[in-house]
Amino acid sequence: MFFASDNWAGAHPNITANIAANAGGFAASYGASEIDKKVEQRFNELFEREVAVYFVGTGTAANSLALASVNRPGGVSLCHREAHVIEDECGAPEYFTGGARLHPVDGALGKMDPANLRKELKRFNPGFIHAGQPMAVTITQATEIGTLYTLEEIATISAICREKNLPLHLDGARFANALVTLDVTPAEMTWKQGVDIVSFGGTKNGCWCAEALVFMNPDQAKDLPFIRKRAAQLFSKTRFIAAQFDAYLKDDLWLNLARHANAMTSKLAQAINGSDKVKLAWQPQANELFAILKKSDSEKLQAQGAVFYDWNPPHSADPIAEDETFVRLVTSFATTEAEIDQFAALIKAL
Amino acid sequence: MFFASDNWAGAHPNITANIAANAGGFAASYGASEIDKKVEQRFNELFEREVAVYFVGTGTAANSLALASVNRPGGVSLCHREAHVIEDECGAPEYFTGGARLHPVDGALGKMDPANLRKELKRFNPGFIHAGQPMAVTITQATEIGTLYTLEEIATISAICREKNLPLHLDGARFANALVTLDVTPAEMTWKQGVDIVSFGGTKNGCWCAEALVFMNPDQAKDLPFIRKRAAQLFSKTRFIAAQFDAYLKDDLWLNLARHANAMTSKLAQAINGSDKVKLAWQPQANELFAILKKSDSEKLQAQGAVFYDWNPPHSADPIAEDETFVRLVTSFATTEAEIDQFAALIKAL
Amino acid sequence: MFFASDNWAGAHPNITANIAANAGGFAASYGASEIDKKVEQRFNELFEREVAVYFVGTGTAANSLALASVNRPGGVSLCHREAHVIEDECGAPEYFTGGARLHPVDGALGKMDPANLRKELKRFNPGFIHAGQPMAVTITQATEIGTLYTLEEIATISAICREKNLPLHLDGARFANALVTLDVTPAEMTWKQGVDIVSFGGTKNGCWCAEALVFMNPDQAKDLPFIRKRAAQLFSKTRFIAAQFDAYLKDDLWLNLARHANAMTSKLAQAINGSDKVKLAWQPQANELFAILKKSDSEKLQAQGAVFYDWNPPHSADPIAEDETFVRLVTSFATTEAEIDQFAALIKAL
Amino acid sequence: MFFASDNWAGAHPNITANIAANAGGFAASYGASEIDKKVEQRFNELFEREVAVYFVGTGTAANSLALASVNRPGGVSLCHREAHVIEDECGAPEYFTGGARLHPVDGALGKMDPANLRKELKRFNPGFIHAGQPMAVTITQATEIGTLYTLEEIATISAICREKNLPLHLDGARFANALVTLDVTPAEMTWKQGVDIVSFGGTKNGCWCAEALVFMNPDQAKDLPFIRKRAAQLFSKTRFIAAQFDAYLKDDLWLNLARHANAMTSKLAQAINGSDKVKLAWQPQANELFAILKKSDSEKLQAQGAVFYDWNPPHSADPIAEDETFVRLVTSFATTEAEIDQFAALIKAL
Repeated sequence: MFFASDNWAGAHPNITANIAANAGGFAASYGASEIDKKVEQRFNELFEREVAVYFVGTGTAANSLALASVNRPGGVSLCHREAHVIEDECGAPEYFTGGARLHPVDGALGKMDPANLRKELKRFNPGFIHAGQPMAVTITQATEIGTLYTLEEIATISAICREKNLPLHLDGARFANALVTLDVTPAEMTWKQGVDIVSFGGTKNGCWCAEALVFMNPDQAKDLPFIRKRAAQLFSKTRFIAAQFDAYLKDDLWLNLARHANAMTSKLAQAINGSDKVKLAWQPQANELFAILKKSDSEKLQAQGAVFYDWNPPHSADPIAEDETFVRLVTSFATTEAEIDQFAALIKAL
Repeated sequence: MFFASDNWAGAHPNITANIAANAGGFAASYGASEIDKKVEQRFNELFEREVAVYFVGTGTAANSLALASVNRPGGVSLCHREAHVIEDECGAPEYFTGGARLHPVDGALGKMDPANLRKELKRFNPGFIHAGQPMAVTITQATEIGTLYTLEEIATISAICREKNLPLHLDGARFANALVTLDVTPAEMTWKQGVDIVSFGGTKNGCWCAEALVFMNPDQAKDLPFIRKRAAQLFSKTRFIAAQFDAYLKDDLWLNLARHANAMTSKLAQAINGSDKVKLAWQPQANELFAILKKSDSEKLQAQGAVFYDWNPPHSADPIAEDETFVRLVTSFATTEAEIDQFAALIKAL
Repeated sequence: MFFASDNWAGAHPNITANIAANAGGFAASYGASEIDKKVEQRFNELFEREVAVYFVGTGTAANSLALASVNRPGGVSLCHREAHVIEDECGAPEYFTGGARLHPVDGALGKMDPANLRKELKRFNPGFIHAGQPMAVTITQATEIGTLYTLEEIATISAICREKNLPLHLDGARFANALVTLDVTPAEMTWKQGVDIVSFGGTKNGCWCAEALVFMNPDQAKDLPFIRKRAAQLFSKTRFIAAQFDAYLKDDLWLNLARHANAMTSKLAQAINGSDKVKLAWQPQANELFAILKKSDSEKLQAQGAVFYDWNPPHSADPIAEDETFVRLVTSFATTEAEIDQFAALIKAL
Repeated sequence: MFFASDNWAGAHPNITANIAANAGGFAASYGASEIDKKVEQRFNELFEREVAVYFVGTGTAANSLALASVNRPGGVSLCHREAHVIEDECGAPEYFTGGARLHPVDGALGKMDPANLRKELKRFNPGFIHAGQPMAVTITQATEIGTLYTLEEIATISAICREKNLPLHLDGARFANALVTLDVTPAEMTWKQGVDIVSFGGTKNGCWCAEALVFMNPDQAKDLPFIRKRAAQLFSKTRFIAAQFDAYLKDDLWLNLARHANAMTSKLAQAINGSDKVKLAWQPQANELFAILKKSDSEKLQAQGAVFYDWNPPHSADPIAEDETFVRLVTSFATTEAEIDQFAALIKAL
């Protein structure tokens, strides 16, 4: 019953098999090999346009370099108040931009509220240099709390970005999990709604380390080769990241793995809905579920082998009782129905 | 005949097999899994003392974070004038330290001359803030040009570091290649000669992405967890870097691979010594060889299938003729004798 | 009727006279002259202990270098949500620290609420590197909105800092204005309540450019000479900053100027209290006053010669009507009673 | 006999008088006052074109922000091996650019050798990201060692910059001293030879703190307002920097002060030429003189009241004897003939 994080799962056999299959022989390093080019081409098909793709090693790197690519002096990027970039990357986005600030925007259910975005943007009057200058808006899909922006919601935010001439970045550490719930194409979830740059994550969904920074407009990525190399994210043997993506994107593996992960979370939600000791904090839409239960019950579940973390409640959440705790449960491609059943039984027995 | 770089080679089968072997099941992420701990213990044995080990994704990351860990305001690290850190990392060490300078020190054969090191250090009078303050000395072993510091030479440099209270970092992207030529232990090549921090590279010698930052004194690495995470080098599924090192360090695989790579360079040197069209720039000591030949001959060799790069001659090298070129040939664990024989035949036929 | 900012005022005649008086002859540069040492000694007397004093050119520099002096990897400084450091310095504190974040804490009347500070600090569990690590708490006295922390309120915040082993910085751009209202000594308003580092501002109160970074514990400032020089804030002819402070601190000039500025704001508040067209947003305690009035009235006042700015209402303020505006009025050492009388008459006539 | 530095001199009476004359009344802050605009216009006249002018507080700030304004990822600026930017600014240029490197170029007499510049630029092949990308060339006029580039020499360097599409920056901390020796106009010494950005220094030549960053093409300075504010170099009461420049540039004061300073150095050189105990290291061309003498004689002169510093000999200088020392003597607007005569007598008596 491992619900601590989707990064506690390992790698899908197809991924490791393709790493091994590409390990022999000599290949140009630093992104110039055959399989690098093949996978870049695959991304063009995926996004139904010519994109610029840069492989990096971690999601934090993808997000940080995305923001570094649109960096400005006194730059400010607006994100949700509990976004991964501002809460969970140890300051990497500020570090890689030499101090460009992340400015929090409130919103319910982990999603930036467009009205709040407008309100916060008003603080940055172009003639008032003291406040700095906005340089990007960044959203997360699926969000940090397992919810989803609808296509319309993304379009509403991107319309504000267009007005202000700001690029829109999408942190897609759980891109596939969002895609399968919404049942749309990558193009529909990104550039067709006005998204400019995507952190396309494979690691949490069955790869071991495969993240791609995808620019919808390759012209905007001209300095990326230098930005990436200077950031120590240019791997010499890039063929091995390419090989992971090659297997990941083949025969819908990535979508099937995400469907499974999401289905496991749905099953978990059903179990919780049937209990009067545990309640859902809100309806899960991807592969993360947040719940509220008594501290003593939480400890009991953990003592019985369930692995999960306490979590900081969002600023927008209702306060919980003193003797309650707020927990996160994450499922992955590797989660089994048996694990969920076992956990459901434990809940029932509380 | 792939002599472009040791990073054109792929990964040894034992490495990919161990990646696959560790892909199943759930494991704590971010460095807390069983195999992470096992490999950390293995490093303690290897260095014959309790060390602090941090896995990162690239050699540039290892070097940059090593310097970031000893960072000081106005800090200056002294390195050889043609060191990898100053020539080939796109400014990463300065970037990750927020601008700490690399100060070049001259020396023959790619090695820092101790007398020059002393002379340059004189520029940094502690009472003279304008020059900044030294924060580290960094050397490369094997050097960028395939030569080696003797143990005595390392000890001479570290003695100067001790006098000035400066940590000594060793860039060991080709650590194994140096070790097998010198026929010494890791402890003998590092802390027994006064080295404090090591970038321990596995990637160029048969891994796909396995680099470790090793601190001889764990107390000096207290902030490294934050430094690494902020630098986007904390991989979530660290088990897969650990798995590479696990296989790499087992049954002397790493030493055997390095011996093979070095032997291939020796064989190449013999072929060149027998030619009057190509001459060695200096005697190779590890797995890189530098040679001077006519541009037209170089082009002919490449047209016949030999892959290698032109290289910037060191500042200390004698000038070459207008119609000559300076080239680098690198062998690796994957280089075959047949390749060398084929290349030898081409040289002979020039 | 210049109420735009206290930095619209020039310099007091005593200040410029002392600049001229110290302009002749040769003196050691970079902080080593006689008058530099004399003023450093004066600061010791002022704070009733041996402090370390570093002159810089701007308040933004003082704040940024204060935070740079306590910088940590993944560092986070907690400040009020509308503090000058986070709202009005164009990202300088993040820039000078290479990306250390400012984390906003809410609180009424421009003051950090201790309960909120505790709550936000809980996000930074020492074992959880993803969130980064707290490195400082910074408060502003007088605050950005012209209110004051009582000594007890400062002590309450510093007690939290002590618990968490965090230094407490005080942005004293309007230090004198706070001091005279509270009628306490510099020691009482700072280290006796647990403040560790002070940005001691003279510019807004009659100097032309005189800011000092004051460390209550000189040991914590060891690297400051390098931090300041690297930040381009080491003036060669420091004697001229020293000369300003010399005159500023002589015969209570600084306190008298602040008393005058505050009295002018009080007089302004009385005028507003007597009006039914303009209302105070809250009670002013130093030399800044915030008011709410009809947009049309605001425009009328400006058309008649009153100079002041619209201001972003604090997040904690009640919303204002669509046809209203929120404005800031600042008085200074140079404000005359006649100006206030003239403005009072205009208000009356609305 | 104060020959330690031109920054040991104070401020010319016209400068301090104009500070006092502009101290009264209210004026828009942050560069928007009448005198700010008047002085900006004066710079247009001076340079015979519309330039963009930004006042800053120190020469280090001017140089660092000049380079920050042309910053690129992996950026490298080429400067003379002993330039002030690389030797004497405690790493500020690297710090303000987030790590862009200064790459040293050798050349005799403190001047970048064009052939060496070309040679070093070859290291930065546009297709080779590992080396980074050149972003600027920066020269110093007068140089750190008191010599001058001829107009032709500047033009030769700028021609190389044009070929490589690189901006050319000129560090003019001693701009006036160079101008009067060459007897040319500001336009002739700068943009007419292809200089793009000038650090125009007033501090060393009679101001107390007046440095201007001048862009020949205002379009290239669009982000400078943010760059300067973020760098804590936007003074609130800019009128006082403007007032200094106003007096400095009036009635040729600046040129007359520089002529005097240079004449004093010439007179000093004559005294030294008549001695067989002290020899000129090279012919001085501005207001700095470098000499070689016995250590015992140097100590004797200092014991008799002469104030000057030992200096690091340039890398290109001939070695000196063990018992000799290399010293720097600087004259300024405030140096008197009597001081020189007194020093000449001491030399004679050695």
